[in-house]
Order: sequence, then C-alpha cells, then structure tokens
Amino acid sequence: MDMRARTDHPVLDAIADRWSPYAYDPRPVSTADLCSIFEAARWTASSYNEQPWRFIVVPREDEAAFANALDCLVDFNKGWAKDAAVLVFAVAATHYQNNGKPNDKSQYDLGQAVAQLSLEAAVRGIDTHQIGGLFADKVREVYAVPESFDVICGFTLGYAAAPNEGGPEGRTRHPLAALVFGTTWNEPADFLG
Amino acid sequence: MDMRARTDHPVLDAIADRWSPYAYDPRPVSTADLCSIFEAARWTASSYNEQPWRFIVVPREDEAAFANALDCLVDFNKGWAKDAAVLVFAVAATHYQNNGKPNDKSQYDLGQAVAQLSLEAAVRGIDTHQIGGLFADKVREVYAVPESFDVICGFTLGYAAAPNEGGPEGRTRHPLAALVFGTTWNEPADFLG
Repeated sequence: MDMRARTDHPVLDAIADRWSPYAYDPRPVSTADLCSIFEAARWTASSYNEQPWRFIVVPREDEAAFANALDCLVDFNKGWAKDAAVLVFAVAATHYQNNGKPNDKSQYDLGQAVAQLSLEAAVRGIDTHQIGGLFADKVREVYAVPESFDVICGFTLGYAAAPNEGGPEGRTRHPLAALVFGTTWNEPADFLG
Repeated sequence: MDMRARTDHPVLDAIADRWSPYAYDPRPVSTADLCSIFEAARWTASSYNEQPWRFIVVPREDEAAFANALDCLVDFNKGWAKDAAVLVFAVAATHYQNNGKPNDKSQYDLGQAVAQLSLEAAVRGIDTHQIGGLFADKVREVYAVPESFDVICGFTLGYAAAPNEGGPEGRTRHPLAALVFGTTWNEPADFLG
C-alpha cells in the first residue's frame, strides 16, 4: 500500500515514503541492505564528530536471540514487533570521548543517526518503526551495555505487511506555520508567505 | 569542491553529500528551497507523533535581526556563521502535549528532524552546519521562547564557499564494526561478515 505523505512542498522520496508500520511480513532484510542502512547512520553529523551512537542488531533468524530481544519490549510493542525481520536497540554515549565531559547532545545525535538510517531503509522499501516502550534496564542487562552508554530506544527493520489503518490520510502533521517561526515566537517565518 | 563521503557501502546521495562547511558564500536560499527543507523536518517520525520541534529562522537579508541572531553564538561560531544565508535556532518541547508528562524523547526527535532537513538541503546543494556553541538563555530571551521549550542548538543554511581543509579525506568516521554489534557488546554484528 502506498503510504506516501501528502506533502505541501516537494521533498526527497525517502522522506515522503518513510512511515512506521504496525504489521510486518517476516521475510529477511538482505546483508547488503543492512550494510547500507547502518552505513547511512555512520555518516551522520554529530557534536565534535563524537559519533555517540551504538546499535545492537538482532535478526529474527536467530530465534532464541530474537525472543530475548522481544522480551525487552513492553507487551503492546512485542505484539507487533514480533513479525519484523530485525529488532535493533539504540544506545548513546553519556560522555564525550575527547574530554570526558557529559555529552548533552548524544541523544539528539542518536536521533539524527536513526533518522538517516530510516531514510536509507525507506528508499530500499524497508520500513522502520521506532520503539520507546521498552525496558531499558533489561536491555542493559541482556546485552551488557556499559554504564558509559544510555539505552535510548529500539526500532524494527523489515517489510510492512498489512495496510495501515486509514492509509496516507491517517498520516498527520502540524502545518509548517505552527512549527517554523521568524523572530517572534508563534508567528510564522516570512518565507512561508 | 566535492566533499562526498568515501562510504564503504552505497547510501543515498543526500547522505554521502551532506557535510558541514565552515565557510559560506552569502547568497540567499530561495523561498522554494526553504519551504521544502522545513517540510522535510515536518514529516519526521516522533514519539507519539508529538512533533516536539520548533524552528526560529533568521535570514541574513534582515541585517539587524541577523546581527542579533549572531550575537547568540559563541565567538568562534559567530566568526564563520556570519556569512551563511540563514541562521536557525532549534528548540524542543519539554512535555508531551497529549498528557502533560515530561517528554524524554524530544531532543532525540529534534535531532531526527534536523537530520531530515539537512538531507533535503544537501540534495538541493545547500549546506548545513549545526551549532552547539551558543547562549541558550540569550536565545530564549531574544525570541521569547516559552519555558515549555528547551533551546537545544542552532544551524546554518547556505552555500559553502571555500574548500574544506583536507577535502573528503578529512571526513572520518569509526568503522561500522565499532558501532554495530550483535548480541555481545563490542562484537560486530554477524551481517558485517
């Protein structure tokens, strides 16, 4: 099903086509696709080029490992994520490696990295769905995530199955005028006309 | 100058071409480009579709406003950002609008939005450079940012001028094997071979 966003201005196909399915066809993602998807994350910008992101990647082919990964999710997310080809946990460094100071941009930079890999996936017909509802302490324990990284979120990679409820019309966003201001708060930027 | 990343695996042109210049040619960015760039941010994924991002956009054509915006940056960043076509400040909601709880994903989601708009810019030949070194309190004061939003960062939009020191070889990243693990921390995921 075409879930392409009904955009008000033209954007990259990858941006319009990216969406977050709740139903997956459990066929695998190829190695070549996975390499390019994470390569996309690798080239993300970050504060002082710290690259504070790390990813724990669990494909469903490894049944026992995949079951363990699913157990790190809250029940609702376990219910739909179980059919995805790959489950990933995303963690962010707590401190800058170059000077040991707290890195207050690491979650922001991790977000950038996941956005980039989501677009690389989208253009390959691979759908991502990010997951906030998980047990971070359990992820830390199962994968021995060191204290120097925070467990931030997870996401699925795979091929969407069923049509999304509502189709593309169900994909809603605030208007640009509510997001993009000029020098006065809450007043649209001049270029929006 | 071609600053295209020397990637190990193929990725979207926008991802390979995006980089962060320190020198700008001060010609303006068109209204059509600005609209598409922020439209790209608009369609970003976010936790509960909260879209916690807001942008304050200051083009250099408005000299007094641009000077005020530059004054929100630390001296080093003011030095190179002064020639960019547009200076933007990016803020994130502190709480979820749907239930009033603290939004601990808003910085992450803002990072996603800026990544998306940076790629939309890159494919249009427009270069972004994100800025952490700014006076957040001053941004809040100058633009009357309410307490319900945190000032996170800024970024420039414009056309790169001088070649970057070092060219594309100067663009370095950790290898994928140092970023993408399987079920054992610090051991590369199987698909990396």
